Amino acid sequence: MKESGKISKAVIKRLPRYLRYLEELIKKDVDRISSNELSGLIGYTASQIRQDLNNFGGFGQQGYGYNVKALHVEISKILGLDQTYKMVIIGCGNLGQALANYTHYYKAGFIVCGMFDVNPRLVGLRINDIEVMDYSLLDEYLEQNSIDIGIICTNKGSAQEVADKLILGKVRGIWNFAPMDLTISDDVALENVHLSDSLQSLAYHINHRDD
Amino acid sequence: MKESGKISKAVIKRLPRYLRYLEELIKKDVDRISSNELSGLIGYTASQIRQDLNNFGGFGQQGYGYNVKALHVEISKILGLDQTYKMVIIGCGNLGQALANYTHYYKAGFIVCGMFDVNPRLVGLRINDIEVMDYSLLDEYLEQNSIDIGIICTNKGSAQEVADKLILGKVRGIWNFAPMDLTISDDVALENVHLSDSLQSLAYHINHRDD
Repeated sequence: MKESGKISKAVIKRLPRYLRYLEELIKKDVDRISSNELSGLIGYTASQIRQDLNNFGGFGQQGYGYNVKALHVEISKILGLDQTYKMVIIGCGNLGQALANYTHYYKAGFIVCGMFDVNPRLVGLRINDIEVMDYSLLDEYLEQNSIDIGIICTNKGSAQEVADKLILGKVRGIWNFAPMDLTISDDVALENVHLSDSLQSLAYHINHRDD
Repeated sequence: MKESGKISKAVIKRLPRYLRYLEELIKKDVDRISSNELSGLIGYTASQIRQDLNNFGGFGQQGYGYNVKALHVEISKILGLDQTYKMVIIGCGNLGQALANYTHYYKAGFIVCGMFDVNPRLVGLRINDIEVMDYSLLDEYLEQNSIDIGIICTNKGSAQEVADKLILGKVRGIWNFAPMDLTISDDVALENVHLSDSLQSLAYHINHRDD
């Protein structure tokens, strides 16, 4: 296998999608699949698929195709899904609660350990057996617990302050849902879900169906 | 101005981000800004910014910079934000409710008109004065109302069926939050928010901080 550090960003971006399709194939008891068949499912060209998966070496064989399970294991490893991640959620409105439920039910390995909010009506609420704590306790909690990922579901005005606290508390990554670009240190990973950008992009495509 | 159909996808993708920063500038009563100053805020190079905004012509002047409001209006128009969009939400759990609140409070022009769910415990609930209706009424509702955007917040198993109903009901775009790739007709716009892909991408970047 190539050093995973050498795999291009574009390929990395496509890996979760490969993984989703491989999971479907495993569920259907499919043991192996050719790049042509995979192309029919996933929509990338067969040649693109061969090029992408070549990065991980040795899984495709002429006339045999890819070993579905082995490829699934390998891509999972590269993405770091063979590890577990302890997470906190800051901002426990509908979106924070939705993400708590989502990871609880569907994402083994991503474990919500703490939830925080400033709203007294939410503090004390239990979501999947995790009690929402007062936001003022976040610093102390991060000091006493080793947390990998902080999920920011606050409004725009609070997001940078929350990010600063999370970084001080030594999280390794931030999943940001606030509609703004955070300033964070280089050693912390950042993934944004900008709902507003996505909705505006949809509006554009509605008006330009021929592009 | 160039035909907007000619603007590259990469530029279009950056427009919502420009718009976010322009909104901040308008709030701060900034009338004009140079590409260098904008670069300092938004993080693209000044030359990239000039190239991007050149697509819309006439807003930047040597030694003057960009007229913030005029640029905001122009980008809004190109994205189709000078129109209003009637929307329905299918699946009214936490995520569906979060999106209903989000668009209600923050996205003028995107109006949730109907909400639907199969769960009898959710049917009848009122979210910002919109009553959650039984999913079986969706077809009829779409026949009687002209809806632009369908938001899918169901589980994976139901998402394609919901999309088929939405397309039959003549929506112009689908905003899909179900963790799967939908098959839809070419004349309907599709924008996916794949939370799972985003979380896996975060896991990757946590483990490869030096990429």
